[in-house]
Amino acid sequence: MNKQIDIYEVGPRDGFQNLRTYIPLEEKLKIIDDLVASGIKHIQITSFVSPKAIPQMKDAAEVARICLEKYKNVDFFALVPNLRGAQTAWEVGIRKISYVVSLSASHNKANINRTHEESCEELRKIMERYPELYVCIDLATAFGCPFEGKVPAEAVAAFMKDYVALGVHEFNLCDTIGVANPRQVREVIHVVRAAYPDLTLQVHIHDTRNMGMVNTLAAIEAGVDRIQSTLGGLGGCPFAPGASGNLATEDIVYMLNDMGYDTGINFDELLAASRREKETITDGVFSGHHMNIQNKMAE
Amino acid sequence: MNKQIDIYEVGPRDGFQNLRTYIPLEEKLKIIDDLVASGIKHIQITSFVSPKAIPQMKDAAEVARICLEKYKNVDFFALVPNLRGAQTAWEVGIRKISYVVSLSASHNKANINRTHEESCEELRKIMERYPELYVCIDLATAFGCPFEGKVPAEAVAAFMKDYVALGVHEFNLCDTIGVANPRQVREVIHVVRAAYPDLTLQVHIHDTRNMGMVNTLAAIEAGVDRIQSTLGGLGGCPFAPGASGNLATEDIVYMLNDMGYDTGINFDELLAASRREKETITDGVFSGHHMNIQNKMAE
Repeated sequence: MNKQIDIYEVGPRDGFQNLRTYIPLEEKLKIIDDLVASGIKHIQITSFVSPKAIPQMKDAAEVARICLEKYKNVDFFALVPNLRGAQTAWEVGIRKISYVVSLSASHNKANINRTHEESCEELRKIMERYPELYVCIDLATAFGCPFEGKVPAEAVAAFMKDYVALGVHEFNLCDTIGVANPRQVREVIHVVRAAYPDLTLQVHIHDTRNMGMVNTLAAIEAGVDRIQSTLGGLGGCPFAPGASGNLATEDIVYMLNDMGYDTGINFDELLAASRREKETITDGVFSGHHMNIQNKMAE
Repeated sequence: MNKQIDIYEVGPRDGFQNLRTYIPLEEKLKIIDDLVASGIKHIQITSFVSPKAIPQMKDAAEVARICLEKYKNVDFFALVPNLRGAQTAWEVGIRKISYVVSLSASHNKANINRTHEESCEELRKIMERYPELYVCIDLATAFGCPFEGKVPAEAVAAFMKDYVALGVHEFNLCDTIGVANPRQVREVIHVVRAAYPDLTLQVHIHDTRNMGMVNTLAAIEAGVDRIQSTLGGLGGCPFAPGASGNLATEDIVYMLNDMGYDTGINFDELLAASRREKETITDGVFSGHHMNIQNKMAE
């Protein structure tokens, strides 16, 4: 009981990146303020990508600089796709990055426009140039791919080998299209843990097929204590009305707090933050369930 | 592996009952046809209530008569609130009923307008008059009540005693407002099983707080093999836009099939049925996730 679970809030990157309307810098900072105030200690604040590719992230350097100066005790990290992004991130003070690679070669090509070899080579350059940069691999399509389907758990572990050899210590297993099932989650984690007992693991489970909560809990009960989610579940596909994307931070925090886990997060403040975010971001797809609840339970 | 899980579809009662627009009899029967065609073998088809109280159910006798004659191998059951409803149900050939009582006295009063004693007494009369009628108790607010909060698992077991004494063999533990957590579900089932090893248990878990899937799986892994849900997740509250109500049958079936459980249900046919239902019932609240999915996975 009271086992600590760390919530890694990735809304300011994963939630914001697909929004068409630019969120002004001050609004972004307010949302991050709200997240910190609710007790969240790990936040992916931005992505150091080309502003031409993703205009929403054109203020990456400012967001990072302001947050790093304002909150010394929060673990801020950013997505970095290449050496150039790593350079900017390093210069503004970022010391921890997420680097995305897809387990599926075809998804890697479609999503990042690289072969597996090119992805690995780019990270090698980043780590060589910035040896003090802490790298977490976001392993996309780890549980299934729209082009290649599901692969055995052993293939996940085998794929990680090159990155472990580079010196990566942390992997975030991503269910990019929300097709994992709890039995599969347990198996993948079991196999990966057995192959690499010293690695740190995270999970990032989409709620697309209503399995965000059940798979995240399966991961926790299999030993993972770092969980990714987005405030309000922001990040659903804007082209698929009603389709759920990310797991909502408030949904998972409510359950974990209620089960007696120690998240260190105040649910009521988090829910208020989620509601304010929804008022601010009018073109977002929000899938958090708690925002619409009427039948409150007596305390 | 391949453990059998029986899905108890309750949409034609629980999903339909709150809809303001009357669904014509033929449309109801088409939905039931679709459910049977997908492989569902247990369906709560209607409710024998006063047509003044719930006009949607005014065709209860016809629905029951037609279904019972058309499908001899499907387990049809109906909700019956009182002796009068039991009489009509019995006369049209219904041999299995759900009888609702709330664990919480205040919810029982608000929902059914009876004291606990009155609820128990009414069932005694029904069972005395129709000793061959099979009764399953729908135990509402078993995991939490808007007025009284959560109660210890022992209180659930203690409450069931009077009904077991009447000769009831099956209980459906209902999370009426979607506040159970998986730890609680396991504990309640463990305590109830220990107190009554010979009882048959079902669960009926609402998805209000995004815990429909995780709590239902917790129940299954704690030994329950009868699961209630509604096609499309129909049954969300029409007064709380966006709020999820029932767990969607297609969501739970997809997961269970993918995990290797034997539901006997064809997911693709079920999803097609769900989409047709959504086209038919335009004023319903549907929360099923699969209806809006775009990123299909390769087989």
